[in-house]
Amino acid sequence: MMALPRTDAVEHGDPSADQRAFRRCLGQFPTGVTVITTVWQGNPVGVTASSFSSLSLDPPLVLWSIALASRSCSAFRRSEHFAVNILKADQIDISQRFSTPAEDKFKDVEWRPGCLGSPTLPGILALIECATEAVLDGGDHIILVGRVRRYARFPGNPLLYAQGRYAVADDHPRLLAGPAPPSGAGGKRQARDLRLMGLLAYVEMYASDAFDRYRQSEGLNLAQSRTVFALSAADALSMEEIVRRTVLPPASIEDALPGLVDRHFVAANDGAYALTDAGRALCSRLTGHVERFESEHLNGISKQDIAAARRVLEHLYERLRPA
Amino acid sequence: MMALPRTDAVEHGDPSADQRAFRRCLGQFPTGVTVITTVWQGNPVGVTASSFSSLSLDPPLVLWSIALASRSCSAFRRSEHFAVNILKADQIDISQRFSTPAEDKFKDVEWRPGCLGSPTLPGILALIECATEAVLDGGDHIILVGRVRRYARFPGNPLLYAQGRYAVADDHPRLLAGPAPPSGAGGKRQARDLRLMGLLAYVEMYASDAFDRYRQSEGLNLAQSRTVFALSAADALSMEEIVRRTVLPPASIEDALPGLVDRHFVAANDGAYALTDAGRALCSRLTGHVERFESEHLNGISKQDIAAARRVLEHLYERLRPA
Repeated sequence: MMALPRTDAVEHGDPSADQRAFRRCLGQFPTGVTVITTVWQGNPVGVTASSFSSLSLDPPLVLWSIALASRSCSAFRRSEHFAVNILKADQIDISQRFSTPAEDKFKDVEWRPGCLGSPTLPGILALIECATEAVLDGGDHIILVGRVRRYARFPGNPLLYAQGRYAVADDHPRLLAGPAPPSGAGGKRQARDLRLMGLLAYVEMYASDAFDRYRQSEGLNLAQSRTVFALSAADALSMEEIVRRTVLPPASIEDALPGLVDRHFVAANDGAYALTDAGRALCSRLTGHVERFESEHLNGISKQDIAAARRVLEHLYERLRPA
Repeated sequence: MMALPRTDAVEHGDPSADQRAFRRCLGQFPTGVTVITTVWQGNPVGVTASSFSSLSLDPPLVLWSIALASRSCSAFRRSEHFAVNILKADQIDISQRFSTPAEDKFKDVEWRPGCLGSPTLPGILALIECATEAVLDGGDHIILVGRVRRYARFPGNPLLYAQGRYAVADDHPRLLAGPAPPSGAGGKRQARDLRLMGLLAYVEMYASDAFDRYRQSEGLNLAQSRTVFALSAADALSMEEIVRRTVLPPASIEDALPGLVDRHFVAANDGAYALTDAGRALCSRLTGHVERFESEHLNGISKQDIAAARRVLEHLYERLRPA
């Protein structure tokens, strides 16, 4: 059967032809963030992983995968146990630390051995301790299947990895709008039927979609537009400094930079990256999009109403912001 | 080595001792939502799945798992191809439709065959078309490994499945604050420094956290509080009708109801569920929380300002809402 064209695709094709574009496509599937640990030759080992998945309830099994090229791969292949530490929204620093090769990732981390010996981290959202049940081939990765010996769930919200950046999960607006009406009417909700907070959640979601369309119209993903903004505030930055300033996973920056260099928005020089003139022009266009967005969509509303809306939002911001 | 106690855990233990609690622990790992499709004996087959994971870039492989008990399991086991449709935030209805056994899930869906014949759905965030590479044992599930033949990425934001409910991914607050300053200063942003849209995003996130604290104070999770609200608008409801009215994944409702019954908030009678007197009292307390939330936090703002803020938000809602 023939492949029908999908003209609205941002990128599409054969994954072997453009691995980087394929990886961006895979990045459309959002996940949580875990640090998976073991012990090998007496030393704690840990890697940040988003490939975790539950597999079976009876018997209790989970799986994840690790690249053959990872320097921790052989430790996980040969050790007999691992622990999955699911990270909370406030654990970006832990995620970043275990994403990059480092001499001692556990330095200053108050880990302790779990029931099978694999390190468990403090402040996490959930812990799943496993005996390694099977190690399966998976192309340039291996699949690790674990039999769960012990689990623990803690209160809090998860850290998310979505479309190449860290994110938090908010209730879907359809949940905030209250239960669906009894009849199968299913027409769209009218703004006037929503409570103020439901209205706010909807507007936020729609606006976030609209911003994404602006980025896409420049052929950029979120990691690329953030990289451009970070570089606009400096003369030149190292990869590590871009990671720090954008607060994005290192893999996202490694993925974002080559495209920006290929399109001559960024120049690479001796491990330092800087905006070109074209990059500075791009940055101005992006800023312009945001400004136009607000002015266009607020067009037709009086200045007084906008000022009043700002007062209400600023008031709520100050009231609701955690101490 | 001994298991050290984790006194701050909500629930912990041996997964074989309490499967429901173990499932809640697994639910701490947030995921996207996919509908995975194939064709069997000339008919389109599709299931909602959150077990999708990328596996390998070279060769290009992905994996997912399906329960042996699923009525679609044998179709996927025997078919030679499948397509992963990653859903957008506005595709809850598609997720719900493919989560429940139904005569013809594809009725009125404008699907079309992909390059290998598996159905592709309209309006999705990404499409990953695969030839089935391997089918592996996974306890009460099978693991399907696919070799990717074609991918397509579309603009938009993903639908999330997080802690038992549908959610949307918002930029992590550390991203919203703009690039981190060169120095490690990191002071909190003032409301007046934010653009209207940034302000809106922050207020939405803080409000959502505050609502969760109300629920937790009643010992309820989100699925439970929504079930209570849905039941309050009816005499008695079937499981299917609760799913429809709460807009929650069926598995979340199956998980939420036993706890409400155990605590005598809900009575089960011949496949129908109804609030008890204690349940109705609980519902009044929850409604009270929401009303108090708005009135308390809007306290000190003039009625005129609130009305103006509503006008601005209603205007943005109508402007930004997709046609």
